Amino acid sequence: MFSFSELVAQFETRLGNSQLFHGQPENLYEPCRYLLGLGGKRVRPALCLMGAELFGDLTEDAWQAAIGIELFHNFTLIHDDIMDKAPLRRGQPTIHARNGLTAGILCGDTMGIAAYQQMSRVQHKLHSILDIFNRTAIEVCEGQQMDMDFEQRDDVTEEEYIRMIKLKTSVLVAASLKIGAITGGSTGGNAEKLYQFGKYLGIAFQLQDDYLDAFGDANKLGKQAGGDILADKKTYLQIKAMEHLTPDQKASLQSWHGNQAEGKVEATLELFRLSSCDKQCREAVEHYSGLAFQALEDVACLSKRKQYLHDLAMALLDRQS
Amino acid sequence: MFSFSELVAQFETRLGNSQLFHGQPENLYEPCRYLLGLGGKRVRPALCLMGAELFGDLTEDAWQAAIGIELFHNFTLIHDDIMDKAPLRRGQPTIHARNGLTAGILCGDTMGIAAYQQMSRVQHKLHSILDIFNRTAIEVCEGQQMDMDFEQRDDVTEEEYIRMIKLKTSVLVAASLKIGAITGGSTGGNAEKLYQFGKYLGIAFQLQDDYLDAFGDANKLGKQAGGDILADKKTYLQIKAMEHLTPDQKASLQSWHGNQAEGKVEATLELFRLSSCDKQCREAVEHYSGLAFQALEDVACLSKRKQYLHDLAMALLDRQS
Repeated sequence: MFSFSELVAQFETRLGNSQLFHGQPENLYEPCRYLLGLGGKRVRPALCLMGAELFGDLTEDAWQAAIGIELFHNFTLIHDDIMDKAPLRRGQPTIHARNGLTAGILCGDTMGIAAYQQMSRVQHKLHSILDIFNRTAIEVCEGQQMDMDFEQRDDVTEEEYIRMIKLKTSVLVAASLKIGAITGGSTGGNAEKLYQFGKYLGIAFQLQDDYLDAFGDANKLGKQAGGDILADKKTYLQIKAMEHLTPDQKASLQSWHGNQAEGKVEATLELFRLSSCDKQCREAVEHYSGLAFQALEDVACLSKRKQYLHDLAMALLDRQS
Repeated sequence: MFSFSELVAQFETRLGNSQLFHGQPENLYEPCRYLLGLGGKRVRPALCLMGAELFGDLTEDAWQAAIGIELFHNFTLIHDDIMDKAPLRRGQPTIHARNGLTAGILCGDTMGIAAYQQMSRVQHKLHSILDIFNRTAIEVCEGQQMDMDFEQRDDVTEEEYIRMIKLKTSVLVAASLKIGAITGGSTGGNAEKLYQFGKYLGIAFQLQDDYLDAFGDANKLGKQAGGDILADKKTYLQIKAMEHLTPDQKASLQSWHGNQAEGKVEATLELFRLSSCDKQCREAVEHYSGLAFQALEDVACLSKRKQYLHDLAMALLDRQS
């Protein structure tokens, strides 16, 4: 069995040797190579491989699926960056900013098709695996649409927000684990438990991301805190604050929307603290983390096989114990 | 066996009963239903079904593949319309014009994933069918990129242009027939012959489209002739004219590029006639039509089984005999 960092190292080697995106026309494939080369943590393919290792050896099918999942993730990033008008990804220019809108759309499409091409080469249980992959892919689009819809709304509920981040982020984490487990020979019940683990882990991770973006240590984050506030993003903090502030405080919070005057981050954080949404967000992270670790506990395999997965979840959630 | 119009009628019923795109969020699925509801000739799914009927009865797999192919085609239309800045599709507003850029990208993605979802439900020979489908999907993206690249170039050769229309248009026509044939139980050799038929048919059809857009009867076309000229599109006519005009005539032709002054269509058509590119285009249509019908001839099955396919090709190429 391999640790997260060992799997990522092996994955990078496989990806590098895969000769993906080396055809013509160059204007189509060069941006694809560029984006994949920007790296990323490769959490999803690693989860797929770890899911497989819970139940058996790493097969070619597991590697094939891991590459398919990472390509799919990158496809969503390329198109999401267009929709979010994001100039940077992993500190470098996004494809649409670097090569134009047409390239952004078409390279994204190509990356998505390449994801299916990899996934389709899985030899065993192809129908089951594609069934999960397709449903997940559709759900990710649904989550992205909800996120876009929320930008126009001031009445998003906690339940709606959790559903959105589940679809936009968690289901792909969950499906990575489940698909990996299936390639490893897992029973249906265990694969489903692992799916639940991934789903709750993804929700907890996204909620913590919301928290850290506002209240994290800028040095640890590697970026200025308050990015979501400056971008007027709907986050768990924003939604809970709107639930609990007085009418005057709510009006004050809303007055910062679309307003980039100095002091925006500080004033918003102050209102967040007044509403106790910071505390509620930490509690929600705890809640979903607890559900995640319980689901992992319930997977019927040797406990020591779960260690690396447990370690990775702890690291992702930045927990000491 | 069924004629083209009978198959299209049955296909519309199946598509209508498929309950596709009825989930939430509404902002994602309503534009998908809208676009599919605009119709279109449904040539590709019909070709898939006809390919199956050459060799056997229509199975559920053939219908499943036919729907997958039509959804994939619509996915490419949604994204191509964004890249081409097209306000209309089938006489109605395009999704991006009607619902915005984000909807155009995301509904396209959803349509593409739904195409894979349908295709993945094929029960027999799934690996072979997905292998063709994936390669074709990638090639369609390559063709679209070449088309985009050509907009910036004045030195596109005939060979490059034929390659572009082969990738952008023909390979999906060819793959529709081949995938259908495989669901019908065709041997590899026959399926490949049918692929060649579709490839040449697609090229001939696109070249004729170039010709008719310039020299067709506006009444028959149902639109004003000269649309490609007004849009400064690189077509076979344009490329052959640039090959054969004198330097002065070439300069005159080029001077109309980006110039929307009155008389553009008439002046361009006059230069086209001087260059004989109209005649060369008709000859090229004949050449590729000939290759197509020869390939169909070479498919080893009962001749009378080919009749409907032969009739459809004749109708698409607007030939009397």
